[in-house]
Amino acid sequence: MTKRSKIPSPTIERLALYSRPLQSFVESDTPIVSSEKLAELCGVNPAQVRKDLAYFGEFGVRGVGYDAQELLREIKRILGTDREWTICIVGMGNLGMSLVENDNFRKRGYRFVAAFDLDSRKAGRRLPCGLAIQPACNIPEQVRGLGVDLGIITTPSREAQRAAELLFKANIKGILNFSATQVRAPECCIIENVDLSVKLENLVYHLETLYKGMPMK
Amino acid sequence: MTKRSKIPSPTIERLALYSRPLQSFVESDTPIVSSEKLAELCGVNPAQVRKDLAYFGEFGVRGVGYDAQELLREIKRILGTDREWTICIVGMGNLGMSLVENDNFRKRGYRFVAAFDLDSRKAGRRLPCGLAIQPACNIPEQVRGLGVDLGIITTPSREAQRAAELLFKANIKGILNFSATQVRAPECCIIENVDLSVKLENLVYHLETLYKGMPMK
Repeated sequence: MTKRSKIPSPTIERLALYSRPLQSFVESDTPIVSSEKLAELCGVNPAQVRKDLAYFGEFGVRGVGYDAQELLREIKRILGTDREWTICIVGMGNLGMSLVENDNFRKRGYRFVAAFDLDSRKAGRRLPCGLAIQPACNIPEQVRGLGVDLGIITTPSREAQRAAELLFKANIKGILNFSATQVRAPECCIIENVDLSVKLENLVYHLETLYKGMPMK
Repeated sequence: MTKRSKIPSPTIERLALYSRPLQSFVESDTPIVSSEKLAELCGVNPAQVRKDLAYFGEFGVRGVGYDAQELLREIKRILGTDREWTICIVGMGNLGMSLVENDNFRKRGYRFVAAFDLDSRKAGRRLPCGLAIQPACNIPEQVRGLGVDLGIITTPSREAQRAAELLFKANIKGILNFSATQVRAPECCIIENVDLSVKLENLVYHLETLYKGMPMK
């Protein structure tokens, strides 16, 4: 088995991707799945699937396929998603609202337990999920009190660092940052920056490659 | 120079990441940037920066650094973001609303030119950016008429395929799909799926690796 920390992030993200159709197979009582099928459903090639899984040991039977339930359990164990993770979110604009309502998060075992905004005028507003928005000054006490695992920042850029400082004070060790700015963090906290426009760049690049020199319409 | 299509997606996404601080350097008249500085600002290691740029030829001077303006221009040319791309979006819930208002998209040269929703009761509603929401039945004619380059799907899962079919009819060649479902597409259309919960899985994995066996609080 490879040392966990040596496994590249793209592999980890693909393992998470593989777990999605696997979950559907398990729910529909399909016992066996081939690397070809899994690859097709995830939009990668079968050799990539086999290579990614090989990091973690021996899976599946050559010419037969993978035991869907066993593989799903293993992937969840590897990723650490075999238990529930609690989340607090700071920044209840449109993006914050959409994440709190996101079905995928709930399905994967993530549970929003607190929502904050730096604009105290939003405090008290009730969300469809049942949570009420709290003022950001409540973060340190509330987040510690609830023992929250992860933080998500969906504030405007100019407020992101302040939101992050409040989460550090609350002893949060992992943050997903959707704001358009990099956040400075102490060593004990892992920040994962998500820039949604990067995905567009990837798409544009592949379009340019495919249609270079051809009229696109 | 490597063949464009052989360059891995993670490299393309990192090139897009590098362009962000480079843009700031150019705007603040900083002429030279080292791979170390660029790496630090993007949260990757310097060797990775040098390796990614090497795919596309010779950049920079050993021991000195990169000419920020030249490197930015080259990256934009490689990615195809040296011109404006027009976008239409289908699904004006919270996520759709947040993307239309996203400053990063505008800064990178993406311009929303039409917004649609499958719920015709939303039609006519005016967005902060000035666009009015249109009913989805307008997609084929409007999108062709405006010569839109890219589509974004932010509908609920059950409506994603229908949204995609309308975009295919409008001759859209590239789609960013934020819905929680995979979309079936003809060969001539590139679909890039974005599952935001995958980013959480990556974060959780790294937290588990870092704090394995240690009490996290």
